[in-house]
Parts: sequence; structure tokens; C-alpha cells
Amino acid sequence: MSNDSHVHCGTSIHHPTECADEQHEGGSLDLAPLRECIAQAVRDVKSKTPLAQSFTNFVTINLVANAQLAAGGTAAMSFLPDDVIDTAAISGADYINVGTLLPFYKDALPQIARAFHKNGHRWVLDPVAAGIGKTRTEILRAFRAAPPTIVRGNASEIIALATMWGLISPDEASRPAGVESVDDVDAAVGPAKKLAQFLADAAPDHQAAVAVSGAVDLVTDGAQVYRLPGGSALMAKITGAGCSLGGVTATYLAVAEPLTAALAASLLYNRAGEIAEAKAEGPGSFQVHLLDALWNLTPEQVSSSPITVG
Amino acid sequence: MSNDSHVHCGTSIHHPTECADEQHEGGSLDLAPLRECIAQAVRDVKSKTPLAQSFTNFVTINLVANAQLAAGGTAAMSFLPDDVIDTAAISGADYINVGTLLPFYKDALPQIARAFHKNGHRWVLDPVAAGIGKTRTEILRAFRAAPPTIVRGNASEIIALATMWGLISPDEASRPAGVESVDDVDAAVGPAKKLAQFLADAAPDHQAAVAVSGAVDLVTDGAQVYRLPGGSALMAKITGAGCSLGGVTATYLAVAEPLTAALAASLLYNRAGEIAEAKAEGPGSFQVHLLDALWNLTPEQVSSSPITVG
Amino acid sequence: MSNDSHVHCGTSIHHPTECADEQHEGGSLDLAPLRECIAQAVRDVKSKTPLAQSFTNFVTINLVANAQLAAGGTAAMSFLPDDVIDTAAISGADYINVGTLLPFYKDALPQIARAFHKNGHRWVLDPVAAGIGKTRTEILRAFRAAPPTIVRGNASEIIALATMWGLISPDEASRPAGVESVDDVDAAVGPAKKLAQFLADAAPDHQAAVAVSGAVDLVTDGAQVYRLPGGSALMAKITGAGCSLGGVTATYLAVAEPLTAALAASLLYNRAGEIAEAKAEGPGSFQVHLLDALWNLTPEQVSSSPITVG
Repeated sequence: MSNDSHVHCGTSIHHPTECADEQHEGGSLDLAPLRECIAQAVRDVKSKTPLAQSFTNFVTINLVANAQLAAGGTAAMSFLPDDVIDTAAISGADYINVGTLLPFYKDALPQIARAFHKNGHRWVLDPVAAGIGKTRTEILRAFRAAPPTIVRGNASEIIALATMWGLISPDEASRPAGVESVDDVDAAVGPAKKLAQFLADAAPDHQAAVAVSGAVDLVTDGAQVYRLPGGSALMAKITGAGCSLGGVTATYLAVAEPLTAALAASLLYNRAGEIAEAKAEGPGSFQVHLLDALWNLTPEQVSSSPITVG
Repeated sequence: MSNDSHVHCGTSIHHPTECADEQHEGGSLDLAPLRECIAQAVRDVKSKTPLAQSFTNFVTINLVANAQLAAGGTAAMSFLPDDVIDTAAISGADYINVGTLLPFYKDALPQIARAFHKNGHRWVLDPVAAGIGKTRTEILRAFRAAPPTIVRGNASEIIALATMWGLISPDEASRPAGVESVDDVDAAVGPAKKLAQFLADAAPDHQAAVAVSGAVDLVTDGAQVYRLPGGSALMAKITGAGCSLGGVTATYLAVAEPLTAALAASLLYNRAGEIAEAKAEGPGSFQVHLLDALWNLTPEQVSSSPITVG
Repeated sequence: MSNDSHVHCGTSIHHPTECADEQHEGGSLDLAPLRECIAQAVRDVKSKTPLAQSFTNFVTINLVANAQLAAGGTAAMSFLPDDVIDTAAISGADYINVGTLLPFYKDALPQIARAFHKNGHRWVLDPVAAGIGKTRTEILRAFRAAPPTIVRGNASEIIALATMWGLISPDEASRPAGVESVDDVDAAVGPAKKLAQFLADAAPDHQAAVAVSGAVDLVTDGAQVYRLPGGSALMAKITGAGCSLGGVTATYLAVAEPLTAALAASLLYNRAGEIAEAKAEGPGSFQVHLLDALWNLTPEQVSSSPITVG
């Protein structure tokens, strides 16, 4: 556990908010300031209905939009570079998810990423299925020169992306991939931190985050590592829990700093998953209750959810 | 309020129905004949299960199809011109929605519109995000030479389309755009009427309509303006309420005149939204109850919903 | 009724299981061994969570994935040949559905089918809207040289495909098409058997099946014909019941022989449809209950559902 990290969620270039600095007692990290930033992000999304634009896969595009709306934001989905770049001028943050690629994405996605980079526009990447398919690999490699602000994926995807970008040694990259578990999230700690540091170095304000989804979620800004237990096993029995979490992360990124946004979205999903599981009779009703819970959860319920540091 | 318009919903070229002419009492418009046309359209869709084909966006394509089925119709979705034009030979009306454009749409959509125009095939246009993106603007401009039978959109989209087509002066076009509200619908009254008149002039039977969605919906055939209060604020908290309303409008257009079709679809949605909101615990359950209500509402419940004239 | 067919569901090349041979009593076919194979397939999917990859239409892609997950499997959706072929190396079976074609599918789909054929990779074809559109016809014709393991469609689609492939005479092909009914399923018995025989001849292990959806579903391996009554009329009032049944058939094909897989999927859907209809208040809640029922049904409930032979 470290006590030398600093939380400045109040410096959003998009919607400034003021959150107190963290305090230390007996050497332990006081999460109260961070929790207040998280509550503020949830509150701001509900009151400001920020637009987050998505370039996302066809399987879960509807759930991504509905989850962003349920969290309180506004959604717009686009694929043509002229559409995406025009819309980004009025969106607080963007989301790119590389599932279900079409041929023209090979040129379109790098072009869009370069435009975001040039304009200092913040965006969230979900490197779905990183490592599978030549075209996907080329696209993900191209993002290295115009990187996102937040990457959200499962452990295998985070490790694969960090490997593609040359951020970790072949030894670190050789872990077994493809299965989500607590062990996998643990295996991704090092790659996630290095990835977050790389993203922060490339960001105009040097702020970035990486979120690794698993039985216990992991979020890091490159310095501190946060673990978020909870959620529901039924999340893996509907399609798009991870994709829509990425979209909601972009919604929070429209009003908050990367670390706050990544934590807020993951905590919201963990809490909503628990509520939905308690009410569900299967994955069909689980998804319905999940969207209802995303809508009904209060800023305080989200920000008081379990977080452990280190 | 005007008493010189005439309602002839019984002259559908697709599925003739007989509705009485309107009557006037004390100079006020008697809506009873129009309401009977609306009831007949709802009844005909339930009994004839007409096919309405859609070329629509990927975000809400599933909801469009499910809403058309819930209203009693049949759905088919296509994107290739050869598919669309083949299917149009057996569909009662078509729906084109310009969200989530792909590169080939730039040629495909004008080609499809020209084929519909040549064949006198009736269709509904949803000019989603009109004004954003060079490709979308080119496509929407091309539709001027082969226009739809009905346009349905929010106030900003209707104003943007009327501006693109040179139907309103720059002064009328300079209203603030992008937010849906009663004021916006009011701002769109003039553009909507001019657009409807333009569509009617281009239609083989000189019948057309424009529907503007907002807190109070507005429908016009270019002569008379109808306002439809009611509905639910939760409509804006799910993705696709407007898109699927456009699809259901095409379903009704397969069996009824444009004005009747536009009114029937908007009334159905207002009523269904109210029922769904009363039962919902959030946007997830709202969408489920909305589809159930679209299915369960009777022709009389739809046709007796509030309409004000002028 | 025939008593000379043999059931060997235990010879799956993917996940061997052992099922007893059928027995005959008084000349009638004993379905007990087949039912045990079906129960085993349902059990294996729940315990092994096999991956079935889909190249499917945009309307119902979400429901296909959610249905596969609800049945106990894992889903992956792809469109680029490099993606699909890479993923097929780790998937137990694949699913191709030719709805909502895009221009590049004309080359991509035949290329993918050839790769599956070369690798002996098993896949399910849903020939959606067979007979409509020049591009669709070209693609379906190309599949003749690299055929699927199972074809699932409605009667019109099965007849259209058998006609395209020259498997039936023009006389058999001249039946009225486009409406699903018991009569249509009856009209498809001959074409379905010939199609299944053709698929079996092309399969490395000479096993294949054809499933025809209707009020009473029909499944054949080319020798025996099985009829599966039951299900729900509401299936036709949501979009994607057929598409997702095709996807779930691929999920079962990942662990079982073609005949077993086709029967298991259709029985699961019939039973789930009945449960969902009893709970539903319309098509919105029907879909929610359907996914819950796919998840909750036991292997024994599925395998004991009504089957008639001949």
C-alpha cells in the first residue's frame, strides 16, 4: 500500500469540480477524497447529461447506448470518420471498441484516433479480442501513436495490448490468456500499470487510467492500484456487460478525471450487478434490472462501494 | 384553427379503407372522422400484418423491428440496394433512417430513394443528426430529388432538413438546434409545414406528412397542424424511441394515408409510453413494458388519445 | 415410421460422449437413446461453456449472443475473414446467417465457408430470405461447394436453397413460399431430406441435419424425420427467435452430433417458448422470460419434450 499518490479529480478540463485532496492517517491511504470525487462524477453525469460518442461493435451497441443513458448521459454512435470527428467537437469524451470490425475500419479507426490526439480529445479504448485477427492487430498497433486516455478490458486483452505496444517483456506476456479470473487480473497488474503510465505520458495533462475487469476489478492510474470486489457472476452471462461498462466510463470521463471516471463506472457496475442479481430469474431479467439499477443508484451508493488499495 | 382541410384516409393505394369525411360544428374541426381513420389503421395493421422494410441504424435496429412486430406488422431489414429494391416489391412501405452511416451508403441510399420514387413506393425518412457530417449532408441533399412520403424527426432535424432543401429562409434556420423541447417543436412549425407541402407536391397522390417529436409531438400534412400531448419523459432515456416510432409510422403507412399513419404511430407511442412509465422501475423495464403496451393497445385506445388542432 | 436408422450421438469429433444405441419394440422407434443424447448435449453445454462463433445479421445479433450465453455457451461475433478464421480455430462450431448483407460479404462469406470446409470445421447456416436479392443468391449458391453441417430455416427458405442447389425438381420448388405454417413445413419434408442427404455426403463424418421451423418444427438427418410440436405463437412476434435458434444450434453442435444438436436446440426453444408465453404480458416481456427460460431449463426438461417420428 502506498501513501504517496495524489488525487486531483477537481481538475477536469471539461467540467471542473472541486474535490479535497486525500489525507493520510497512520500511513494508510484515506479514500474519502477519492470517494467524494466519484460521487461528484456520478452527480455531474445525472445533472449535466454529457454526450459521449461511441464507435463500437454491433453486438452490444444498443446496450452501450442504453447504459450510458441509464447512467444519466447522452449517447451518439458513429462509424464514418467525418461523422465521428464532427460529433467529437460536441462530445465530452469518446469510446472506441474494436469488436466486429469491418474492412474500412482499418483506415478509419487510426484516422479517428489521430484526430482525437491532435485535438487533445479524451477517449476510452476497449481492445476487445486483442491478439485475434491481423486487421485488429494492425489497428491496435496504430493506436500506440495516438493513444486513448483510458483502456478497459479483461486481463488477457490488457496483457495483449501492453505486449503489442512493447511495454512489457516477453516473459510477462507469456501468461495464459483468454479466461477471466482473479488470477488473471493479478497477472495483469504489472502490464496494467505500465500501460497506464504510457497513456499518462502521452496525455496532455498526464492523467490516464487502465481498468481490468474480472471477478475483482482492478483500476490503476499507473501509480496506485485499486481493487473493486463485488458485482455479479451473471454479468458474464449477458453479452455487453464489459462493452457497456466501457461506454459508461466514457460518459464519466466527459465530466471527471480518468482515474475517477474508471473507478466510478466500475463501482456503478458492481453495485448495479448485485442489485440486478438479487432480483433476476435469469440473464434476461438480469439485463432489465441492471439498466434499472444503473438509473436508480445514487452518487452516495456508488461512491461508498468497496475499494481496496494496493 | 382551420376548417377547410379534408380527410380522406380511405384512399390508400395499398389497402383501401373507407372513412367518413370530417364534419364541422360551429366552425371547429371535428376530429371524429380522422380518429376513425386512425382506429382503422391500427386495426388493419393488426389484421393484415403488413410488411414494412427498414434501412436503419445499427444502434436501434432491433427495437425498430420489435416495435413494428408489436404494433402488429412484419419487419425486414436490408442494406444492399438489390436486397432493398427486391423486398420493396412486396413491402407496403419502407423506412430509411440515416444514423450510423457506412461508406457505401453514400451511393446506395440515393439509388434506393430513386428506385422508390420511380415506382411510386411510399417511404418514411428519419433524418437522424441532420447537419452533422459531410456524408450525411450529401445523402440528405440527394433525397430532395426523390423525396419520402413522411419525414419524422426532432425539431432540430426537421429545421436542418428544410434548410438543406432550401425550403426556409436562413432566418428561420438560425434557431438553436440540438435540444428537444416544446419550444423547439414550436420553432419547427413553419419548417415542418413547408417540408410537408414540398413532400406532397412530389407525391403521386399529393399526400404527405411531417412528424416532429418532442414533449408535445407535432404532425402536419402541410395544411393542418396537429399537436399530440402526452407520452413519457422516459422515452428519452432509452435509445430508439424515435427511431422505432419512425419504423412503426412506415408500418401504418403500409395500410393508411400519410397523415393518418403519422398520427396513429405518434398516438400509439404516447399512450404506450404513459402505460410503460406507470409500470417501470427504470429505463430497462420501461422498454419491456413499452413493447408490451404497443402490442396490447386497442385501436380505440389509440384513436381516442389527445389531439389538439392548430 | 422407420426402424432402420441408427443414432450414434456419442461420436462427436469435438467432445465425445457415450449414448446407448436405439432399441426397437414392436417395430416402433425407441426414442430413449436419442433423448439421452439430447440431455447429454444440454448438460455438456452447461458444463463446458463451448464457444460458437457467429457471422450474423445486425437486427438480432444481440439476441443470438444472449441466447447462446443463456443456453450455457460462449459467443463471439465476427465479420472480417481474418477474424472469423482465426476465431474458428478455437470455436467448437460456427454459425452463418445471411440477413442484412453488406457489399464485402459477397467475397468474404464464400472465402470463410471454403476455409471451414478445408478444415472440416462444422457450421450451421441460416439461409434468411433465400431467393431475395442477387447478392444473397450468389452467396448461397457459392456455399454449395463448401456446405454447412446443419441448415436451419423456415419452409420457404429450405425449399429455395434446395432449389438453388439443384437438389429438387422444379415441380417440388413451385410451392407457394413466404408464409410459415404447418402446411409449409409439410411442403418442405422432401426438400429438407434431400438437403440433409447432400450435406451428409459432403461432411467428413457423413453426418448432417436440416431443421425447418414452423408451428410444428421438423428436423431430419436425411433418413429419419422428426416432428417437434409445441412452442409459442409469440415467437413470431419478436424478431430473432429463428436466428437465435440457429445460433444455439451451433452451440450444441460444438458438443454433439448434428442431429442431436438440431433436436436439442429446437426442443429447448419449444419448451422455453411455452414457459415464456405463460408468463408474458406481450412480446417485450416474452423475450425477457424466453432468455430466462433458456437459462433455467434442465437437460431432462429439454430431452423429455414431445417428438414424433415420421
